[in-house]
Amino acid sequence: MTKRLYIQDVATRDGFQIEANFIPTEDKIALIDRLSETGLAKIEVTSFTSPKAIPNLRDAEEVMRGIRRVPGVVYTVLVPNVKGCERALACDVDEVNLVMSASDTHGLANLRMTPEQSLLQFGEIIEVTRGTDVFINASLSTAFGCPFEGEVSDTRIHELIQRLVEIGVQGITLCDTTGMADPAQVERLCRHAKNHWPDAVFTAHFHNTRGMGLANALAALNAGIDRFDASLGGLGGCPYAPGASGNICTEDLVHMFQRMGLDTGVDLDRLLQCAASLPELVGHEVPGAVLKAGKADRRYPKPKWMEV
Amino acid sequence: MTKRLYIQDVATRDGFQIEANFIPTEDKIALIDRLSETGLAKIEVTSFTSPKAIPNLRDAEEVMRGIRRVPGVVYTVLVPNVKGCERALACDVDEVNLVMSASDTHGLANLRMTPEQSLLQFGEIIEVTRGTDVFINASLSTAFGCPFEGEVSDTRIHELIQRLVEIGVQGITLCDTTGMADPAQVERLCRHAKNHWPDAVFTAHFHNTRGMGLANALAALNAGIDRFDASLGGLGGCPYAPGASGNICTEDLVHMFQRMGLDTGVDLDRLLQCAASLPELVGHEVPGAVLKAGKADRRYPKPKWMEV
Repeated sequence: MTKRLYIQDVATRDGFQIEANFIPTEDKIALIDRLSETGLAKIEVTSFTSPKAIPNLRDAEEVMRGIRRVPGVVYTVLVPNVKGCERALACDVDEVNLVMSASDTHGLANLRMTPEQSLLQFGEIIEVTRGTDVFINASLSTAFGCPFEGEVSDTRIHELIQRLVEIGVQGITLCDTTGMADPAQVERLCRHAKNHWPDAVFTAHFHNTRGMGLANALAALNAGIDRFDASLGGLGGCPYAPGASGNICTEDLVHMFQRMGLDTGVDLDRLLQCAASLPELVGHEVPGAVLKAGKADRRYPKPKWMEV
Repeated sequence: MTKRLYIQDVATRDGFQIEANFIPTEDKIALIDRLSETGLAKIEVTSFTSPKAIPNLRDAEEVMRGIRRVPGVVYTVLVPNVKGCERALACDVDEVNLVMSASDTHGLANLRMTPEQSLLQFGEIIEVTRGTDVFINASLSTAFGCPFEGEVSDTRIHELIQRLVEIGVQGITLCDTTGMADPAQVERLCRHAKNHWPDAVFTAHFHNTRGMGLANALAALNAGIDRFDASLGGLGGCPYAPGASGNICTEDLVHMFQRMGLDTGVDLDRLLQCAASLPELVGHEVPGAVLKAGKADRRYPKPKWMEV
């Protein structure tokens, strides 16, 4: 029962991009270097978007070139278009992560592209990667619901997965972008995906916006998913829910899986040390629970009066 | 697939007892009266402990006698000893909730009684209830681990459940007192309990100390548990983990179950209105996520530039 799970941290991309303050380049590199030593399967290092669109990640090249790459760790970057992909390839990334929405309104609002336009563009991006061995992942935003349109049907998600597979995408991340997913939906959609596209590499990406993050991860696990995006400290957020929690927290996820007797490959203590550095780095408290409460195997001293 | 679930709120007992400030009696009564209208199956109104031990609940009689009791809602109270039970019976409670620990050290630290001593005392309390139709529930603290001793074996929990059933306890609450449980353990222990004591009424009681609260509730559900303790707003806490979350949050739990298509009997909007009154009542923010983020079916307006 020690099934191997793959934990993928997105804090330095999904988290840092929405921080109020720019995290200095050398601090980003130092954190990623420490994360590389924890046993994470993948690190989403940064995003090759326009510096105007996401000023916090304007140092994408410096960060990607500055980190010490540990064999076995996949270094992925978000790539929004052909130009971003060319920049990423110039930095010798292991993977490019393309992003699209499953719903028109979110796609237009967030990327200024409908799903159809995104798929067209993905084809162009994939062309640019020909002849390289870079892995092509696509993140499907609003796969469990759209904050503008509401429900996104399972049928629509199945259709988009099929289209992605057909154009040559190798990995697909099902993203609960704004924390709308529930465990029944997650189990249903993930099980279908695993059964119908056995050769695609699926990742589950949850947000804890409504407190269901780890319950959804559990449901995905039960459906056969073995790859999980999560964010150190629970950094990240939802622009539509101010004050709400963001991505599920990497150390909380690893802690839960380890308590369940599952093999995450991650050294939780090292990971917690990384997380402990975050509040100072970002200038505020972070949502992670295990960082505050300690691991479940933490022992407390008896009350003093009992010793007498 | 619309299995009926029973949601039991413990905020006015488990939550209020550890608040820094005394909640005025009339405010307690007003909140319970509003909770009674939400469709909750049970409300743990207060605790008939010594006013010296828990000054915040020193108004137990006034609260229990002051509330407007809605038919169908079970009004339960915590009872620590024979005297507390006599006080509770004088207030015509529907249920008494007896508390013991599964571990010696936590029992001694929290109740000044070992499990054996608690069981003896439970016998005396049950004697006092003879001739009444009050329901006898027992809450088994540290059923998923002890913050002093660590692991508590499944065998030990099975043994204690058997002893409780033998002395006439009708309902048993398996409590993850300090948030140590993980979903695999929860599913295993709950499934065994449901299978081996089919006539006992089991409740699962989780804390969100390490972020696993709703994942554990999901695991208990998968194991056949249909009764859940939770605390409005996520009030409550763990004295051993300052700053950590307390009980799982009632409205977050109901929200998750409703999204899954399950019947909780609860009017979530009314429940959220109750939760919304908490920050002013207790003088601080509360952990509940849905209160901050809105329900998952919340729709956001398109960005303004898209309307042009």
